Amino acid sequence: MKSKILMNVGLKNNSPVAYLMNVLVTGGAGFIGSHLVDRLVARGDAVTVFDNMSSGRQEFLAHHGDSIQFIEGDLLDIDAVKSAMVGIELVFHLAANPDIRLGTRVTDTDLKQGTVATYNVLEAMRCADVKNIAFSSSSVVYGEALEMPTPESYGPLFPISLYGASKLGSEALITSWVGTFGLKAWLFRFANIVGARGTHGVIFDFIHKLKADSTRLEVLGNGRQEKSYMEVMDCARAMVHLTETTDEQINCFNLGTHDTCSVRRIAEIVVEETGFENVSIEYTGGDRGWAGDVPKTMLDPTTLYATGFEPNYNSEESIRHTASTLIQEIGL
Amino acid sequence: MKSKILMNVGLKNNSPVAYLMNVLVTGGAGFIGSHLVDRLVARGDAVTVFDNMSSGRQEFLAHHGDSIQFIEGDLLDIDAVKSAMVGIELVFHLAANPDIRLGTRVTDTDLKQGTVATYNVLEAMRCADVKNIAFSSSSVVYGEALEMPTPESYGPLFPISLYGASKLGSEALITSWVGTFGLKAWLFRFANIVGARGTHGVIFDFIHKLKADSTRLEVLGNGRQEKSYMEVMDCARAMVHLTETTDEQINCFNLGTHDTCSVRRIAEIVVEETGFENVSIEYTGGDRGWAGDVPKTMLDPTTLYATGFEPNYNSEESIRHTASTLIQEIGL
Repeated sequence: MKSKILMNVGLKNNSPVAYLMNVLVTGGAGFIGSHLVDRLVARGDAVTVFDNMSSGRQEFLAHHGDSIQFIEGDLLDIDAVKSAMVGIELVFHLAANPDIRLGTRVTDTDLKQGTVATYNVLEAMRCADVKNIAFSSSSVVYGEALEMPTPESYGPLFPISLYGASKLGSEALITSWVGTFGLKAWLFRFANIVGARGTHGVIFDFIHKLKADSTRLEVLGNGRQEKSYMEVMDCARAMVHLTETTDEQINCFNLGTHDTCSVRRIAEIVVEETGFENVSIEYTGGDRGWAGDVPKTMLDPTTLYATGFEPNYNSEESIRHTASTLIQEIGL
Repeated sequence: MKSKILMNVGLKNNSPVAYLMNVLVTGGAGFIGSHLVDRLVARGDAVTVFDNMSSGRQEFLAHHGDSIQFIEGDLLDIDAVKSAMVGIELVFHLAANPDIRLGTRVTDTDLKQGTVATYNVLEAMRCADVKNIAFSSSSVVYGEALEMPTPESYGPLFPISLYGASKLGSEALITSWVGTFGLKAWLFRFANIVGARGTHGVIFDFIHKLKADSTRLEVLGNGRQEKSYMEVMDCARAMVHLTETTDEQINCFNLGTHDTCSVRRIAEIVVEETGFENVSIEYTGGDRGWAGDVPKTMLDPTTLYATGFEPNYNSEESIRHTASTLIQEIGL
């Protein structure tokens, strides 16, 4: 992206560069959003966070003090979104319902918090003439892909979870705004993102289960589910890197590592990191954790790597680092 | 689909077969929907039409008298949809905003009439335990595809119109219901469908322009836009055929012909069929008719043809037949 870039330098050495841009981060108080805010502040951006605090936390942003602007608001309140959009040059739209499993019980959450929220962001951008959006999509748009590792050009796209439907529906809205109203877009299809400040997901769940009962760990499914993982600071760094170094009308990237880790291996690693001994790991059985769970995902990160980006952690390293960090955050 | 099929016979000779199924057709009073209702009634189904009459017309169904049930209702009224769903075995969900260009001026119509309406249909199906849905998707889900003819497995899917976004968003909701709640689905990606009872589209527009002024015909764009066309009775026949002969959890088919027709050629054919002479065909210029228009689409109908289906008309024949039919319907 060329506007207001004073110096376009890769971030491989993690050194801040002389950017100055007015950036809005939806979901910026959340797990991934708050790490992204850290990087944007570090490079000198004027950052506004828009978050409804449903899963965001004030303490994830507290260290920024008054150097960022915080708006507590709901993306379903389009007037609030329009107000927040004035003067913004780039939107990172990360807000969403983070609980993929919820869709099996409540069917309208992903539609509203995902697809309709994205519509409101885009409509507010159109009204305020904001031209650049980066969106946190997900590997779940691929559904049960027949090709692995799965490249960005994979089709057909048949997501099997309601969360996945909201991600693909949001991507489609964004590309339609590109085609109709001249936006520029970055679509980031995330692997499973793990790391410090995690508020949900398999590692988080395992630690809480072990905290409640250190003698046994119940694992949903047969443990053979196998997915790509990416460490959250690698993820935030990749997002910023790609908006700096790619400039097509639509820039679509898998954000993940080149390998996978099984749920069985995650259970072992988490148990190891707790230091608990003689833990009985028990499997509920079945090839997936819940209806709509994709048993195996392996993203092809070739296009990401081709931009010069390198993750600091592979999947298993991400898991171990996260387990260690979250055990410290949560306590045992 | 196996349930209640008494005799599973191809429809190549247009002879009705001994089906009896409770079928709901959303948008059943519209252009394509009413042709579909004709075929379903002919094969002996108990047909309920659900239509808000925004572009549907009573006269398209009048010939059925009391042999079908008609519900005037809005898909955004979920209680009405739930009521209509009781006892249904198969839903043909065709209702949508038919005006693709509208999205360039009003941005929430496709979201509501498309994506949210599809959500309501699916949620009503879940509540009433209805397991089978056939959906009218569109070639616009492919956006500006790099591969032509475009197969169903094409990716990435970057629709460029808001209408296209609503079709892909609806497809994604449907596949997520398949993965999460065990539905069976048919996704039909329509070429441009033309024929009797047409209420919009390029042929319809050209006839109305020539009716107003028989000396000149203004064509949006440079006339080189080139798309696949399918005659509406072929389309209705293909939909019924595919729900009878295919039985995967997700059955996705391009519904089109193996060729294309340019807008320039359509203008010539329509003028020829009017019989008007010395008509000046004038082009507004540019490679597309409006922002969000896809300049060229060519669907690969191989998987459709492999099921034994053959269209009666190719693209150019569909155009000529439609021009002749609509001129009779509209009058000059």
